Order: sequence, then C-alpha cells, then structure tokens
Amino acid sequence: MHVLVTGAGGMIGRKLAERLAADGAIGPRRVTRLTLADLTAPPAPPAAFPVETVAVDISAPQAAAGLVAAAPDVVFHLAAIVSGEAEADFDKGFRVNLDGTRLLFEAIRARGNAPRVVFASSIAVFGGPYPELIDDDFPLAPLTSYGTQKAMGELLLADFSRKGFLDGIGIRLPTICVRPGAPNKAASGFFSSILREPLAGKAAILPVPDDVRHWFASPRAAVGFLLHAATLDTVPLGQRRSLNMPGISATIAEEIEALRAVAGDEAVRLIRREPDETIMKIVAGWPRNFAPQRALALGFGADRSFRDIVLAHVADELGNRVGG
Amino acid sequence: MHVLVTGAGGMIGRKLAERLAADGAIGPRRVTRLTLADLTAPPAPPAAFPVETVAVDISAPQAAAGLVAAAPDVVFHLAAIVSGEAEADFDKGFRVNLDGTRLLFEAIRARGNAPRVVFASSIAVFGGPYPELIDDDFPLAPLTSYGTQKAMGELLLADFSRKGFLDGIGIRLPTICVRPGAPNKAASGFFSSILREPLAGKAAILPVPDDVRHWFASPRAAVGFLLHAATLDTVPLGQRRSLNMPGISATIAEEIEALRAVAGDEAVRLIRREPDETIMKIVAGWPRNFAPQRALALGFGADRSFRDIVLAHVADELGNRVGG
Repeated sequence: MHVLVTGAGGMIGRKLAERLAADGAIGPRRVTRLTLADLTAPPAPPAAFPVETVAVDISAPQAAAGLVAAAPDVVFHLAAIVSGEAEADFDKGFRVNLDGTRLLFEAIRARGNAPRVVFASSIAVFGGPYPELIDDDFPLAPLTSYGTQKAMGELLLADFSRKGFLDGIGIRLPTICVRPGAPNKAASGFFSSILREPLAGKAAILPVPDDVRHWFASPRAAVGFLLHAATLDTVPLGQRRSLNMPGISATIAEEIEALRAVAGDEAVRLIRREPDETIMKIVAGWPRNFAPQRALALGFGADRSFRDIVLAHVADELGNRVGG
Repeated sequence: MHVLVTGAGGMIGRKLAERLAADGAIGPRRVTRLTLADLTAPPAPPAAFPVETVAVDISAPQAAAGLVAAAPDVVFHLAAIVSGEAEADFDKGFRVNLDGTRLLFEAIRARGNAPRVVFASSIAVFGGPYPELIDDDFPLAPLTSYGTQKAMGELLLADFSRKGFLDGIGIRLPTICVRPGAPNKAASGFFSSILREPLAGKAAILPVPDDVRHWFASPRAAVGFLLHAATLDTVPLGQRRSLNMPGISATIAEEIEALRAVAGDEAVRLIRREPDETIMKIVAGWPRNFAPQRALALGFGADRSFRDIVLAHVADELGNRVGG
C-alpha cells in the first residue's frame, strides 16, 4: 500500500518514516510506496520500497491535490505549527493547522478513494478546570489557538468520515517525553530536558515543584499509536473518531526517580531547581491524568512505566549509553 | 448603541429586529442604530432610531468588512444555512456556516473594537448516545454537517474571545416551537405543525409515537436569550463561551395535552397519525432533556411550561384567536 506522511520532517514524522522503512509493513499490510512531505524535503530513510520526498506548504492552494494525486491508501497527517508558534502567530496557526488540514481533507474528498486518515491531535483540545482523572467524554474546550485548531480538525475529520469522504481516526497524543534534540522554548520543554540533559551528562533546569503531575508518552509509543490507528477497524468508533491515547501519569518526583534508577544519583545532581512563576502558572492549567478506556479497548498500547519511557530514550537516542 | 443582526430575514432574526425596534433598548442600554443584514434585504420594522437593511452574502470576500465598518457595539450572528440544506449541500454549508462565521469574526478583529458577539448555536453540536438528562459538560460530537459547523463556530468564538478580538457568547438554542409560517421539510417540522396547523383549523400529520420526547423553546424565549446574552457580564463564562439554553422537555403526548388545554378536543382531532420510519429513526438520535445549570445561573429564562409555548404562539402569531 501507498503511505503518505505530512509533517514527515518533524520529530514524530521522522521516527514514523524510519519505522515504516524498517518494518516494510503496517500490521499485516505491506508498504509498497512511501511519500514524505514537509515544508522542506524531509530525509528519506533507506527502504526496500520507493520513498519519495516532497517540499510543500500544505496550506498553499493545490498543494494537497498534488500530494494525494496518486491516491495513497493511508495518510498520516502530522503537519502542524506547534503550540507556542500558533499562540504567537494567530494567522499562521489557523492557516496551517486549520486551513492546511481542511485543504488536505478536501483534496482527499476530490480524489475520491476514501483512504484511512490518521490525524495527529493533542490533549490540547481540552481545557481546565480538570478532574484528577479525565475520562473519554470530557468536553472539547481548548485554552490555546493550537488546541482550538486541533479540535476543529477533529470535527472536520469526523464529518468527512461520516460522509464517507475519508476513513478518519484522530489520536490525541500525550506530551511526548523524552523529546530528543536540543532544548526548545516550549513551556513543556523541561519535562524532557530534566531527563535528556542529565542522561547526556549535561545540566538541566527544573522550573516547577516536584509534585507537578502531567501525562506522557514516549516517541516510540506515539509512533506505535499512529501505526495501530492506520489499520484498526474504525467501525467501533462510530461518530466519535478521536480518541485519548493511553500514557503515563507521572509527577516530577517520579520522573526524577526514574532518572535515578537508570542513570544514578550523579545524573539527578545535574538538575538545578530554578522556580519560574510564569511556567508554574501555565503548567497548572494542564491535565494530570486520563482514563483512556476507549483507546485501551481498541488495543492501543502505551509505555508501561516512566522508567520504560527513560529506557526507550536511552535505547533509541543514546545507543544504550548514559552519561554523555 | 449600534446593533448589527446577520440573518435578520430569518424567523428569529425578524422577531429580534421587531423586538429591538419596539423596545428601543437592550436592558439598560439604548439602541441608537440598527443594521439588518441577510442574503436579500430583510424588512425594516418601524423604529425611533435609524434602521438600515443590507443585502449581502456573508461568505463573499469583503462582505463582512463592510458590515462592521461602522464598528457596531453588539453583533447578533444568526446567518446560517439550515440543517437540512447543510446536509444536502456539503460545500454550501461549510462556506456559509463556517467560512461566513470566520470571515465575520476576522472582519471584527480587523475593525478592532471588540464588540459583544452573540452567536446563535444549536443543540445540534451534540450527538448521541445521550443520557436521559444532558449536563453542561456533555462533549461536542455532532452527527450532522450543520452541527459540525456550529461546533467549529463555537470554537472560533471562544478563541477570538480569549485573544480579546471580540467578546463572544454562544447560545445553543433548543428546537424552536411553535415555528410560525408554512410547513417545511425539516425532519423536526412536525413538532411545530401538530400545534400550528390545528390552532389555525387545519389538519396536521404526526409521524412519530406519542412518547417521543424532545427539547423546546418558543420563538419569544429564543429572542429573550439573544437579548440577555447581549448585555450580561461575560467574565463568569471563562473560556467556555457557549451555553446550553434552558427549555422545556416535552413528549408528543404533552404537546397534544397543551394543545387540548388551549384549543380543545376539536383541535386535537385535526392531528392524523401517519407513522414514518425514516423520521422516527432520525428523531431517535435527538436529545430529550437538558440540565442547563450554567445558563440558569447566568439569568437566562425559558418558557415555564409547554402550555406557555402554545399560548406564546397564539398571542404572537394568531392575535389570541384559535381555530382559523
């Protein structure tokens, strides 16, 4: 089957492309062609089937028509402006995250082959006040433009699916941890950097108290969700096409204990506490824990512990070596 | 203050315009100018202040900029393609109900005066399966394109409000009953016609069993919701800018008893039972009852009984005379 990935140059997109190239299949179905699209042409992993890379702005007129001209069987729609940028640039966020998504869905509808579309959504579609444990029926009430755009994308996905224009499934990803690469300015960045930097022998700053709790999945788990979503039977979803993914609810203290278990006291000592009121306020508005019953019933599998999340990073990013 | 009404030629729009003209004020604030817009120029009720009428397609480029050029203080955004037409014409529904709404909000943002915007939403933003009593935290999961477009409009309204571009409030109207005018092809039409036609001495067809329950407000109550929304303090709304309006939950049997109380057995005998499986199936997917706690706490007032709904129709449409 022919697989298209938008946002294939992003962190999850690259890992998904690598996994598709390595496995050569999604579940029982063989991949015969892979199209990787992003604003700049993403890297093409070595594969036993043709891989083409495309540089394209999905919010440009006709861009999406070109992407789906060959009628891909599975579309992973990951392309998006991230949360911080969507908040800073209101127009760009709506243009890429809403219009880009709608243009892609419209192009798929015009192409007429009703492919499986896996839409990367986010727990940012929700907003507080939250219960301690968020169930599958929690209302859409985003507190950011990014969350608004993702919620609108979910609504489009459901209506286009109901009409038979595509066969959509939206997966609401937890905060990805450990995020590889350099520290970034996202307010959530410290959740990863307090692990990633010490694991590489570097110092990291912790701006919130140890009892702050949040909801996580490893990049490896996120790729697993995408692949599972690509082949599962969507009939049991009914009209509710978007699902809270499973994850690990952990406090900062639990993150630190997982770091200690994997890399010792030496690594933990590299974390410097520098309380930041602004970040504390932002994080106070974030969800702490979910009960993703629908996704679990549909066979989505998460990391088993926060320690597994750390070990996945050590295996996938550090060649199983800690301490830099 | 200057008031703009889009969709001012529709049933609710006309009644709102008449009420604004008659009252000359919304709550404590005097109306000094009224702009009534619709696809064809709506009628202008006699008023003690200037009333202008505009024929405009809000989904056309620049149309919205013209409407808000004079910086109205309150915008009632009622313009929409109705449910049945939005379902039959997918592109038109999205163009008018989603793009028209977004263009209006963008024009308001560009104008820069952050007016109060009252957005007429609908209980169609919800989808089954429903509990017997739907609370304020029920998730957005529409089962129609119309409901999808209204839910997306609510999300835009909330995000534009959060950013300070406008001061929005969305009101989710119950099914309006008794809907005046000729019978239409809406699947919900019989809820009104089994009252309206017998009250005028005419026969009506009832396609569903007597125990079917649904959620109603009179046109008079709907206009009251819009006016209350135009002046209330929006701070207590927080980020959840759209509200389930109060209404009356009634069965067909209760509708018929209200008709009997107002117009006698003779009127009731004009209802002919012609079960229609298609309509029964559609209506089985509709909500039956709401607990609109937030709206009640914010002072929204509904009809007090189904009998009041019938009496409002007799007073407002029939000059207090029944039997044609």
